[in-house]
Amino acid sequence: MFGSEVFGVTWVQRELQLPAMRRGCHPITERIIEAMPELQYVRVGLLHIFIQHTSASLTINESADPAVLEDLDDVLDSLVPERPSYRHAEEGDDDMPGHAKASLLGSSLLVPVRHGRLCLGLWQGIWLCEHRSRAGPRRLILTLQGDIVGISQ
Amino acid sequence: MFGSEVFGVTWVQRELQLPAMRRGCHPITERIIEAMPELQYVRVGLLHIFIQHTSASLTINESADPAVLEDLDDVLDSLVPERPSYRHAEEGDDDMPGHAKASLLGSSLLVPVRHGRLCLGLWQGIWLCEHRSRAGPRRLILTLQGDIVGISQ
Amino acid sequence: MFGSEVFGVTWVQRELQLPAMRRGCHPITERIIEAMPELQYVRVGLLHIFIQHTSASLTINESADPAVLEDLDDVLDSLVPERPSYRHAEEGDDDMPGHAKASLLGSSLLVPVRHGRLCLGLWQGIWLCEHRSRAGPRRLILTLQGDIVGISQ
Repeated sequence: MFGSEVFGVTWVQRELQLPAMRRGCHPITERIIEAMPELQYVRVGLLHIFIQHTSASLTINESADPAVLEDLDDVLDSLVPERPSYRHAEEGDDDMPGHAKASLLGSSLLVPVRHGRLCLGLWQGIWLCEHRSRAGPRRLILTLQGDIVGISQ
Repeated sequence: MFGSEVFGVTWVQRELQLPAMRRGCHPITERIIEAMPELQYVRVGLLHIFIQHTSASLTINESADPAVLEDLDDVLDSLVPERPSYRHAEEGDDDMPGHAKASLLGSSLLVPVRHGRLCLGLWQGIWLCEHRSRAGPRRLILTLQGDIVGISQ
Repeated sequence: MFGSEVFGVTWVQRELQLPAMRRGCHPITERIIEAMPELQYVRVGLLHIFIQHTSASLTINESADPAVLEDLDDVLDSLVPERPSYRHAEEGDDDMPGHAKASLLGSSLLVPVRHGRLCLGLWQGIWLCEHRSRAGPRRLILTLQGDIVGISQ
């Protein structure tokens, strides 16, 4: 097994703590790739990205023009406006709209992996959408699974 | 292999039939955990939850305050109101809005598993959102995959 | 190992290029099944379907009545209308609404597989939702994983 090719299915799970971000949409593709160095050994697989919070969400969208980040945030505000009629309101006017936006976008992504890279389209990037006006850090759980090809020691 | 530790990737798939629920959002985390006892043997993995219906959906959201369940249902009603202009209307005014809400929230969830537990955030719970006013039972397909550590007989 | 049953976890990944489609929702279940013949060997598993574009999306919905396809498209138009106020507008009025709709529905699906078949409910089908008025072909990445039972040569 010295220096030989090894094949098999690997499972790697890591936490990624992201610092507090301002309300809005933020590209995080590079941070995710950096946090999961085992990606490079995966021949074919899937990377799961899960956010352990209910007022921030994950999505994949156009990441060449930063204007899209702002426009999507405006669309979300128009879909779920801050209004005084929510029952759940202790933490402020942005509280319940944040939870609703999180359910509309979703709390996890699953991205194909091939030959050591995320199999994203040319314009696609991974975004964290922060729905709270004053948010804290956000914790992601990254789970990588796939067929690996590696050089064992 | 008697009493020894065994490692490997496991796949378990189970059906979970949920009784008819009233229109609205319902926490179902405990029912899912009970329906998949093999969860406890998974060191690192993913649990997939899929609903085989098109007018009910699954989401993860804030499960400490029951008011969030009601508020999200109101938000969904405001996004997709019952109106007479839908083409697909044989089963009533709640029919097509139910299908639209199902596409907005989605029909499946994928949740990380670690050391035998769902890796949910502190406030996160799994919800079934019933979009029909008079619904029947709903069938879920649970698929668990992951690295297992167990004591074999 | 000649002619014997073999068990194991398989990973298969394929690209599926779909021709340009008119704006709206289109059932694509049959095309996906045809593009992944290895499905038939999977005892229990999951099929991941990922679209590498940011102005078209994937969803699962009612596929018996074609009217649902049109109604959902109308709902999406009502949620994210074409309006002149978007910052991102170089490619036309349908550009930014297309990106927003893609985030609302999502760019991937994960479907359970059992005994060689997609484990969809009776009325469920897989749709591609094209959000651009003049779209090009769309590329999907299909990733199949699961426990296989096969006859080896």
